[in-house]
Amino acid sequence: MQALILAGGSGTRFWPLSRRHRPKQLLPLGKSGSLLRQTVERVIPSVGADGIWISTTRELVDAVARELPELPLERILAEPASRNTAPAIGWCLTRMRAEVGDDVVAALHADHRVADASSFLEALGVAERAALQGDRVITFGVPPTHPETGYGYLELGEVLDGATGLRRVTRFTEKPDRETAERFVASGDHVWNAGIFVFRPSHLLGELERLAPEIGDGLRRIAESPGDLDRLYLDLPSRSIDHAVMEKLDDLATVPLDCGWSDLGSWDALAIVLPTDEAGNATRGDVLAIDSAGCLLWAEEGQIAALGLRDLVVVRTGDTVLVAPRNRSQDVRRIVEELRERGREDLL
Amino acid sequence: MQALILAGGSGTRFWPLSRRHRPKQLLPLGKSGSLLRQTVERVIPSVGADGIWISTTRELVDAVARELPELPLERILAEPASRNTAPAIGWCLTRMRAEVGDDVVAALHADHRVADASSFLEALGVAERAALQGDRVITFGVPPTHPETGYGYLELGEVLDGATGLRRVTRFTEKPDRETAERFVASGDHVWNAGIFVFRPSHLLGELERLAPEIGDGLRRIAESPGDLDRLYLDLPSRSIDHAVMEKLDDLATVPLDCGWSDLGSWDALAIVLPTDEAGNATRGDVLAIDSAGCLLWAEEGQIAALGLRDLVVVRTGDTVLVAPRNRSQDVRRIVEELRERGREDLL
Repeated sequence: MQALILAGGSGTRFWPLSRRHRPKQLLPLGKSGSLLRQTVERVIPSVGADGIWISTTRELVDAVARELPELPLERILAEPASRNTAPAIGWCLTRMRAEVGDDVVAALHADHRVADASSFLEALGVAERAALQGDRVITFGVPPTHPETGYGYLELGEVLDGATGLRRVTRFTEKPDRETAERFVASGDHVWNAGIFVFRPSHLLGELERLAPEIGDGLRRIAESPGDLDRLYLDLPSRSIDHAVMEKLDDLATVPLDCGWSDLGSWDALAIVLPTDEAGNATRGDVLAIDSAGCLLWAEEGQIAALGLRDLVVVRTGDTVLVAPRNRSQDVRRIVEELRERGREDLL
Repeated sequence: MQALILAGGSGTRFWPLSRRHRPKQLLPLGKSGSLLRQTVERVIPSVGADGIWISTTRELVDAVARELPELPLERILAEPASRNTAPAIGWCLTRMRAEVGDDVVAALHADHRVADASSFLEALGVAERAALQGDRVITFGVPPTHPETGYGYLELGEVLDGATGLRRVTRFTEKPDRETAERFVASGDHVWNAGIFVFRPSHLLGELERLAPEIGDGLRRIAESPGDLDRLYLDLPSRSIDHAVMEKLDDLATVPLDCGWSDLGSWDALAIVLPTDEAGNATRGDVLAIDSAGCLLWAEEGQIAALGLRDLVVVRTGDTVLVAPRNRSQDVRRIVEELRERGREDLL
């Protein structure tokens, strides 16, 4: 099996720590090192050091190479421009093919968190066998703990393998509204989509041509005329693999994934998984907290002195400090948008 | 009249802006320049540029001289050590005497706020005449707006002059408990002590000898043996002028002071008097506030990004950031104490 790790994101939800040239996957948000490095180390037992491929952008390729100096440069695939995950995965698969043929590929995000690596690897093994046997795309279903509206939901259908829990997916619903999410969680037959896909490249590229021909055609043109990559890639439509392919597949299947997974979608999501002190504060760096509880206090540079705070996020960098209630941390992008409008390139 | 401006304080309540070598009176907390400079400029119409004297400490004398370059150095009187206001005022009066004889003196703090300077000067004139006529100490009584427990209260007695509102003070209560403060405010016959005293030096020094003989004796020894100042000053007991003298006087009088006075005793007190934006936020420096109200956001260096905050104080300096609810800002000293215990001289 090969692992294609998607590390091209330029998320703003971890501002002010995340910036244009240091997106979330390169931040040391976990126990040790960046999320990208942790993702690589997590899958190596399954794919080997030689089975690691990175999908990223030209803007980030140097930073990725610095973060993973042991990885041969030719396995860091840099898109000429950001066109979301469908063109990115499709183009990477055409590049990988020459070297690894039709080996099963696990496409996974570089910036997610997994607490229990061995459960994760076990599920990956189940998915690999299922993708080989059924020639279908295998997703990973996380038992939902709350009606999260930021995730995709998989509706569970026919049991394909009782021993492994492999089931058919009867519907794929991306980011439902609150009411729908509550209904899904209450139903007991929906799981969160972890955003990891396992498949044979020939199968996925075939489905891409069938379901999203404008992308399939574009990729074929690039393969025929590699010198025109920059121009041709720009012509590809910006689409996610979920919308372009996954939602439309009628033979999608899913394996259960119960490994402490989180997409770390916000400061609040991070605060939930970080270790805390007796008062329930998660802290990093030089922090003094008095009479404060339930806070995420992150000092990258300088000190944070917190007095009498409840459930706040405070993130201090050398040039700014973010202060917000944890339950508003989804709105941090509003700050980034406002800074962009004000032309504050220095803070982006 | 002479003005003796008390600028020796090393308050910690405006940490992290205030530090050992930059106490509150040297901070630009007002509309323009430091509180010390504003205090000087406020009293000049009453005492003239030649009537300004500064009481400070050796540690701060350079900073004070830099802040007031136009003031002759010999009118900046630096105590060898901090011994609170009773020794400081007593010693300064003995130093001033040689040059200005028994001119009436107004002793006032360098770090208070006055919104209406002309009302203030008017009250100062009333006090000067009263101190000359009655040879007594005149205090200034501020109509209380709430049961503040951090102030001293003056109980109003016999009316001495109906035209000016001069009244005898029947009791002086420093920092009462909450219940007492509430009773005082409800009574209608108590005012806040603004901490400004007007008197003839001969009268106050006489009372100091009579009511606090250990200070009076010490000052006489210093006058007799000026070469031993450093050693003798260290022997003086550390006492406030309120406790050593004012509370014990039986002929204390007070003039009404209704001029938008505040002792700016905390970040919250400052927030109350600063101009605010439409959302009720008082801001300084590079601040971006979204969905935030009632906050004091002060960026001395770098930026503050506030999202969804209510009634918080956020103060960012180059080396730290304080975050606390406004109603906890009296407890900022707890942070300073904790930093001292941890040996964090870099932040004190």
